[in-house]
Parts: sequence; structure tokens; C-alpha cells
Amino acid sequence: MLDREEFIKSLVVENDTKIVLVVLDGLGGAPFKDGKTELEYAKTPNLDALAAKSEVGLVHPIMPGITPGSGPSHLALFGYDPLKYEIGRGVLENLGLGVDLRPGDIAIRGNFCTVKEEDGRLIVVDRRAGRIPTEENKRLITKLQSAIKEIDGVEVTFTSGMEHRFALRLRGEGLKAGVPDTDPQKVGEEPIEPKALAPESQRLADVLKKLINRAREVLKEEPKANFILLRGISELPSIPSMRELFGLRAAAIATYPMYKGLAKLVGMELLEVEGSTIAHEIECLKRSWGEYDFFYLHVKKTDSHGEDGNFEAKVKVIEEFDAFLPKILDLKPDVLAVTGDHSTPSVLKNHSWHPNPFLLYSKYAIPSGISEFSEKACARGNLRLYYAKEAMPLILANALRLKKFGA
Amino acid sequence: MLDREEFIKSLVVENDTKIVLVVLDGLGGAPFKDGKTELEYAKTPNLDALAAKSEVGLVHPIMPGITPGSGPSHLALFGYDPLKYEIGRGVLENLGLGVDLRPGDIAIRGNFCTVKEEDGRLIVVDRRAGRIPTEENKRLITKLQSAIKEIDGVEVTFTSGMEHRFALRLRGEGLKAGVPDTDPQKVGEEPIEPKALAPESQRLADVLKKLINRAREVLKEEPKANFILLRGISELPSIPSMRELFGLRAAAIATYPMYKGLAKLVGMELLEVEGSTIAHEIECLKRSWGEYDFFYLHVKKTDSHGEDGNFEAKVKVIEEFDAFLPKILDLKPDVLAVTGDHSTPSVLKNHSWHPNPFLLYSKYAIPSGISEFSEKACARGNLRLYYAKEAMPLILANALRLKKFGA
Repeated sequence: MLDREEFIKSLVVENDTKIVLVVLDGLGGAPFKDGKTELEYAKTPNLDALAAKSEVGLVHPIMPGITPGSGPSHLALFGYDPLKYEIGRGVLENLGLGVDLRPGDIAIRGNFCTVKEEDGRLIVVDRRAGRIPTEENKRLITKLQSAIKEIDGVEVTFTSGMEHRFALRLRGEGLKAGVPDTDPQKVGEEPIEPKALAPESQRLADVLKKLINRAREVLKEEPKANFILLRGISELPSIPSMRELFGLRAAAIATYPMYKGLAKLVGMELLEVEGSTIAHEIECLKRSWGEYDFFYLHVKKTDSHGEDGNFEAKVKVIEEFDAFLPKILDLKPDVLAVTGDHSTPSVLKNHSWHPNPFLLYSKYAIPSGISEFSEKACARGNLRLYYAKEAMPLILANALRLKKFGA
Repeated sequence: MLDREEFIKSLVVENDTKIVLVVLDGLGGAPFKDGKTELEYAKTPNLDALAAKSEVGLVHPIMPGITPGSGPSHLALFGYDPLKYEIGRGVLENLGLGVDLRPGDIAIRGNFCTVKEEDGRLIVVDRRAGRIPTEENKRLITKLQSAIKEIDGVEVTFTSGMEHRFALRLRGEGLKAGVPDTDPQKVGEEPIEPKALAPESQRLADVLKKLINRAREVLKEEPKANFILLRGISELPSIPSMRELFGLRAAAIATYPMYKGLAKLVGMELLEVEGSTIAHEIECLKRSWGEYDFFYLHVKKTDSHGEDGNFEAKVKVIEEFDAFLPKILDLKPDVLAVTGDHSTPSVLKNHSWHPNPFLLYSKYAIPSGISEFSEKACARGNLRLYYAKEAMPLILANALRLKKFGA
């Protein structure tokens, strides 16, 4: 039986076609205002006109009923099996905070917590240190970082997150993931000692033990955040690059660290966006048009407003993108795909499992005869994509970048 | 986990229902004339009327974006996983030229090429011998065949193909595939010596070395075709028959060697068609109606005209088949499926990845309420077949040939 990636890789041919994949983060919605979703409510004359000339459909990011985080949902859209590659929580936390990760680094997600001594035992009384303000977090991280820069030859890098969260990166020789969380998951229990699951993770476990002890010393006078818990202790997964798998010189146009990090994971070039708006992203696309085959253009705010339950603001971002669509078409991409990585319905204030509208425009598309880009309209479309991971082969085919399988 | 084939096999029951699978080769199209596909343009009153009484949908031959050759696309329609069984290039070349292949035979695809000696090295200067005319090829094959009939007890059979191509079959004891191509893929390089990848292929490598040397001797005075390159050195894959898997006495009505060969691969009986038109095929179907459970009826010309970019001619073949459809219905098949093995849009002059219209007619079909047989109309159908390999269980079910799974 052929391996899916090896199979697709074996069919790849290179040419000079241009592909644009627009990901409107958290695009899909659910009925909210007058029973309409954000996309249905938004005025999107350009997307609707493009839909009429395109193949449209609905796509499950992972599979029916599964609500994905940004990691797996993006991997799928980039053509990878999201169940094959695990991106550790520690890796995502670090990437999301813009930390540079290299193969061999250990990436960890940390929490400040509150502990007290009881009958000679150290027990956790608040796993989130009372959700301290982010400002407070920054002060503590500065304190930790200036006290702990290195342990046994391992470089230690702390990065502030929101409230009680932070990212931790260890860089040094001989480290190997394989140490479970130190968070006991319950108050009233002792923090778990770092323990190596296999001999090759022993050095990491030793470094973490020392690091935790030193952090305790640094934080001992703090009223709330007097200890740390470590979770998602992980390494960069080894993922073949888009160049290697699909023969694409791929570039990412994104303004948030998490998405830049995900793009870097699959070997995309990170393009510099001079600003943070869609307008800046389109400028960047134009400027770099000649240099790459594949452009991933990420619009973040659809998701952010969905998570805030701000229906109107999400509608506005969709409309804002719609206004810029002609600028992308002016570049004459051979294939243009527009979709979301997952749904973020304002009604749920969260990511959801709802499949996402998908639009594929190319010279060889068979238009569905549907002149509306929305969840309901796309459900009637001819593009029977089922899983998001199937989009990339279809995109490559429309760019004439896949040769025939068998004779 | 149940193996898919074992699973289906375990549910098979036999009865006296009749199934017809019509494969209009390369049926699917893409927008071409007035934005229409060949099927949309063709006048197909009978197919449209049948569609209204049938379940219709779109089917991916392999998976979204993958353009298949006839080998894997037919295997899928016959109910096999096309990624499980690999049909070697040499096997397909021989089957396509009507060569009889048996288990244990070695099947090879050959090219005449031009070589010259340079500093004591033999180098390839034209991998296709200037694409010599097919007539010239025939003369050379006759010459080779009369000089080389047998090597070390192995029977050698050459068969002319188009231009510089030929098929080669080796039949004898102790041969095992496992020798890479001798074609260096580049001019200016030496032909590659046959080398066994494992000890069991050593005898084959030895026979091929002798064969190549003798061919060189035979061809040495030829101005262009003075050497041969061997590719796709393969054996018949071991595929369970349709009888074994699905309990079907299956028969093939096809006029082109390739499709006869593919049908034989899955154990179909090859029926003799007295002529080469659709009319002759329908005659054959009628004549053999009592003797089999399952008929594969293949119409080739839709694909041929698509590959020539001849939109009108492809339209005509579709219309011609449409006119014969009532004759098939007159036989009162319990299940009639009409589809393509893959798309061959005239606009691409080639096979393509576009999913194919699929129509399933049976007493138990739930009509989609769609009275048009075309890509767009079928896209709105209720038959959510995804992969072509899923068609056969559905066909068997409609013929009441699959019993309940579990209690």
C-alpha cells in the first residue's frame, strides 16, 4: 500500500504556475443574527462573483465533529495529515509567542501557580496563581530570566504569555523530549517531579528538576505566583517541507507569530509584512509575486472577533477582505483558494467543528453555478472535498503540477 | 481492523441478478465550448431520462486532485483499492498491445534508442531513436524476433508499439521482477546494466544482459534504432478475482487490448465482440446475457477524442452511446451503472483529475430528482460516492448481493 505523502510526492512536477491560498482564520460561523452566519450577513460582492466562476464546497478541517486548534487545522490545509504529525503544546505555545525554535530545542508551556507546604509536603493550592494579570506575569518572567539563564550548559529562555501562562525554551546538547507534565491537574496534590520516560530523556529531566528548584527559590517571596508547573514538554516534529513534498517554493504572509511559526514548520519562507492590516499583506503579496510558487496569506481577525463573540466585527473583517480580493485577482494567480482553517462562530465564542466554505478558482475549475460564498451556498457546490488535507492535491492538480498516476 | 476486501467478501451472497457497468472512457470534461463540457453539450435524452429514475453523483477515480491512468482507474471501478495493487508499466504496455500475460511472466516496456561509442564508452545519444515511424518499428521487431526467440530456456516475445516503443515478454522458470530500468533517462550517459536488486532476480538480470547484447548485435547496422532500453520490468500483480471477492461471474465487453487485459487481470471472461462499434458491443451483451452476472462494457472513443482535443467528436460518441442505452435497458438489468474511468477534457487533451458523473439505476435506487446526466447536475445528486472503489459495494447491494453486517 502506497503511503499518501510518498504517493503525492511521486506525482509532483514543477512549473511556473502561481498559487495563492487565503486562510481567513475561523471563517465559518453558525446561525447568529437573524439566523444568519457572519459570511451570510457580510456583503461580499467580490467573493460572490468569484464563487460563480469557481468550484465551491465545504471542507472538514480534520473530520466531522472535530474542532481543531490552529496547529492541526493549518497542517491539513498545507496538505499534511493532521493526525500524522503531532505538534506539541509546548511547541505551539512557543511559536505563538514568536519564539524561534530549532530542531533539538525543547519547548514547554508553563503556568505560574501557588503552592504551600503542608505536613512537609509541597502541595498546589491554585494551578493558575489566581490568574495573575499579564503585567504581573511580565515582571515575574523578567525576574526569572535574569536569575536563570543557563543550567548545566543548557540555555534557558522564558517568554511571557497571557495571565499565568508562559513559554519556556531549552537549547543545548543531549536533550530529548520524553518527560511528562509536572502539573498534577488537581489542587491539593504535589507537583509531579520531572521523570524521564526513557534513558535518553534523563538529561532533560535532570535539567528540569534543577530549573524548577531554582525557580522556586526566585519566586519564594511571591504571594501568589510562587511556583511553576510545566506542560507539553515537546520538540519540533520532523515534517517534510512543502518544497520536498510538493515541489513548491512556498512563502507565508502572516502577521501573528503562531501562524508564522506553523508556516516555518513546513519550510515556508516568512515574508516581511510592513504593518498588520490586510492592505499590508496584499502589498507584500504583490512585492514578492515573482519569487515564489505558493503564497499562504493569513487573515487573523475573523477568528479573534469570533472568539470575542463580536459578530459585527467579524462581518467587517470579511467585508474588508472582500474589498481586497480584486487586488489578488489582478496578479492573475493560476489557482486561488479561499477558505478558513476552522470555524469560529460568534455564537460559540470559540473554534468549532463546523465545516468551512472552500472556493477554488482556476482555469480548469468546473463552476458550481453558485454565486454566493457562504456555508449554505457552498454546501450545494460540486467540490466534494471532505477533509482539508485533500485540498492541496486538488490545488496542485489545477496548477498542472501533478502528473498522471499509472498508465 | 477488518481488511476492506475481506470485509466485503464476507458479506457476499450469490443470486441470479444481472449487473451492467458501462465505462465511457474519459467521460468527464471541463468547460470548453460556450463554457460547457462535452456531456453538457451532447444531446442525451435517454441518459437524462434514466438519470431522473436513478441515483446520481460525482466520483473521484482515486482521490481529489489525482489524475489516473487507465490501470488504476479501472481497478477502482472494479471494486479494488487502486493504491493497493500496483500494475507495472511493463504489464500495462504488454496488455495494451494484446500480449497474453500469465503469472510468472516478466513484462517489459522497451524503447528503441540511438547509441554511439565514445572513448570506449557506449553512450545514449537519442533515447527514442528519433521517434522512428511505426512501420520502421515493425520491421525492426520482426528482425529482432526472428534472431532472438529464446535465451537460457526463457521464451522471448517482442511486440511492436507506436514509434520507438515496444513490449517485451519473458516466459520461463525462475524469473522474478526486481531489476531497475536500463534507461539512463538522459542523453550523454551510458545505458544502465541490468542489476538484480535481490538474489531471486539474478537469473532475470542475467537473461536481460544477454538479451541486450544480442539485440545490439542484431541492430548494429541500423542508422537510428541501434540499441534498446528496457523500462517498467514487472510481473502481473496477484489480484483476487471478481469471482473470488464478489462472487460474480464477470465478463468484459471491450475492443481495445488494454481494457481486455485489465479485465483479465481481475478474472473476467473476455467476450468476443464481432466488430469494433458500440452496436457490436451491445450485440455481444445481448448474446451473452444468460451466461454471466456482471458485464463490464467499455466504450473507448470518448477518451480518444478527448485526448485529441476533439470536442465535437467526443460529444458524438456520447450521443451515439445514448442512442443505444434503451437496448441495454431492454435486457432489464437489475443494476445498471454508467460512469467514466477518469475525465479526459478536450480542453486539456489529456486525462484529468476531475471527478466523474456516476449514475446508478436499480429498483432500489432513491432518485435524486435530477433529470440530467452531466458533471454539474450529478454534483447535486444524492449519491455521495467519494472514491470510485466504493461503487462496487453499492452496486452489489443494489443487486441484493451483500448480506447484513453484524446482527
